[in-house]
Amino acid sequence: MKNALSGAATLLAALTLSTTAFAKEPIQPIAPVQQLNLAQSELGKKLYFDPRLSKSGFISCNSCHNLSMGGTDNLKTSIGHNWQQGPINAPTVLNSSLNIAQFWDGRAADLQEQAGGPIANPGEMAFTHSLAIDVLESIPQYVTEFQQVFGTDQIKIEQVTEAIAEFEKTLVTPNSRFDQWLLGDKNALSADELSGYQLFKDSGCAACHNGEAVGGNSFQKMGVVEAYQAKSPAEGLSAVTGKDSDRFKFKVPTLRNVEMTYPYFHDGEAETLAEAVDVMGRLQLGRKFSPTENDQIVAFLKTLTGDQPQFQLPILPPSTDQTPQPKPFE
Amino acid sequence: MKNALSGAATLLAALTLSTTAFAKEPIQPIAPVQQLNLAQSELGKKLYFDPRLSKSGFISCNSCHNLSMGGTDNLKTSIGHNWQQGPINAPTVLNSSLNIAQFWDGRAADLQEQAGGPIANPGEMAFTHSLAIDVLESIPQYVTEFQQVFGTDQIKIEQVTEAIAEFEKTLVTPNSRFDQWLLGDKNALSADELSGYQLFKDSGCAACHNGEAVGGNSFQKMGVVEAYQAKSPAEGLSAVTGKDSDRFKFKVPTLRNVEMTYPYFHDGEAETLAEAVDVMGRLQLGRKFSPTENDQIVAFLKTLTGDQPQFQLPILPPSTDQTPQPKPFE
Repeated sequence: MKNALSGAATLLAALTLSTTAFAKEPIQPIAPVQQLNLAQSELGKKLYFDPRLSKSGFISCNSCHNLSMGGTDNLKTSIGHNWQQGPINAPTVLNSSLNIAQFWDGRAADLQEQAGGPIANPGEMAFTHSLAIDVLESIPQYVTEFQQVFGTDQIKIEQVTEAIAEFEKTLVTPNSRFDQWLLGDKNALSADELSGYQLFKDSGCAACHNGEAVGGNSFQKMGVVEAYQAKSPAEGLSAVTGKDSDRFKFKVPTLRNVEMTYPYFHDGEAETLAEAVDVMGRLQLGRKFSPTENDQIVAFLKTLTGDQPQFQLPILPPSTDQTPQPKPFE
Repeated sequence: MKNALSGAATLLAALTLSTTAFAKEPIQPIAPVQQLNLAQSELGKKLYFDPRLSKSGFISCNSCHNLSMGGTDNLKTSIGHNWQQGPINAPTVLNSSLNIAQFWDGRAADLQEQAGGPIANPGEMAFTHSLAIDVLESIPQYVTEFQQVFGTDQIKIEQVTEAIAEFEKTLVTPNSRFDQWLLGDKNALSADELSGYQLFKDSGCAACHNGEAVGGNSFQKMGVVEAYQAKSPAEGLSAVTGKDSDRFKFKVPTLRNVEMTYPYFHDGEAETLAEAVDVMGRLQLGRKFSPTENDQIVAFLKTLTGDQPQFQLPILPPSTDQTPQPKPFE
């Protein structure tokens, strides 16, 4: 009995310590999905994988935010309709529900608003919302599923984007080794990884890369101490606010699963994590990390890879004789 | 006891009847996968979904043989590297293990030989086998998995294609309503669907579209009674055999899941099943189906949709700093 009580006391002490330690950290563990409209999310999953939302019938949300590859395309900038080269690096969809806003320049307030963008962007899916609705309306299984989920007879683009956004809310990645450490498993990280985390905090990375998503919650200027030699014309937040002071401010990207979301920065110019850490250190913090320090920070960053979304590949309802044909080569 | 025996006798009689009926049919039910190297198939599934087997890093096997869409891209002809327009309609990968040979002209003897084709085809994935191996060799998780599966230290293209082929063997679609009917469930088909099947047999469709895959087991000339007015330059089997008598002979496509594998024919010129049935009737059989007959045959064809492959979307191992970069825009 004494041993049991003593064990309980030790456990309590450990839990208290863990909670205290956790409260002091700038990063919080990713919470699993707490609330979900499952029917809406299942519909959204189909739409996310459906290339018939593009003019060509070839490009779906998953083409550039590939859930087999960290929710990105792992390309410097994306490939759009007719193989057009996109202007910016595709940010990961993983944990994007935690972002303060969507797109690098934050021009969409939330996931639902974001989802409508690429469908109608001539350089991406090159479709129109109205044509996308025509396609969906021609497919009885979609019509029925929208009726079940939204209780209305006519499919609206707001329902399409709402369902996609609901699916995207499921794309969180809890249970990374770093989160296991945060939650009390002190053996989850190696000494090098812990040193990297300490450096990450001490040198100021965590000033912007913090919170549940280790980023995604503020806009910051790219090139604070030293100017960034951008090859891309993207100017970031100023394109949205019109303020000169917002030039080159971009949404701080999440570092969750950063091992999988290469290449880095809004222009995809940094091919490796080592390069990204080096550039960030010099330009944002005025600090040149030694090779050992760089290695340690990279080692820490790789502990942020969480459980990837696990789900069955959706089977899409077939088109009918009434479905408008895709136009890949027009 | 008497009732039980009488019930058993009835069941036996029904089974005998069913087996007899079944033996007389030109179509046999699809058998589920009987034998599989699971580790190889799981590796092959990753490779099937991995766009890093293409020059651009954007096109995977699943891009044109999309397992969400009946194992095809549902385009007249496919989109290749740099948005090149392919010369031929992408045949479904579903049940392709049952084919007599692969590709419309049968130029690959089996699935393994087929799998190497698109990777190195400049108009498709535009890569080389050697570069594909370089990519895989740079990714430790792949190296380990190949070691486990093949017991060798160095990845070879023959292993890549063997693994992909093993995965493709899993892509059979048993349990269609038609197979349920073949297996004895006489309520599985409606009167119209049964009439369509009777017409399908009586008018000669089943002469070529027979067996487990309802096709896929012979090469036949496109345009027997009446010439096919082809817009595509594809000449079929003669390109492989060099024989003039093989001009315009193509592998008879499977009709399994044909509801999902639109558009139809090697050139994708028939947009609907009704059109395909009409053209086939006139050109191959010299028979003009009435609208009712056409409807009935189409109704029968839609009963050939089987259980689609069910599996988790694979998560791909990330590239490393040593991985050669994709070159989408070169």
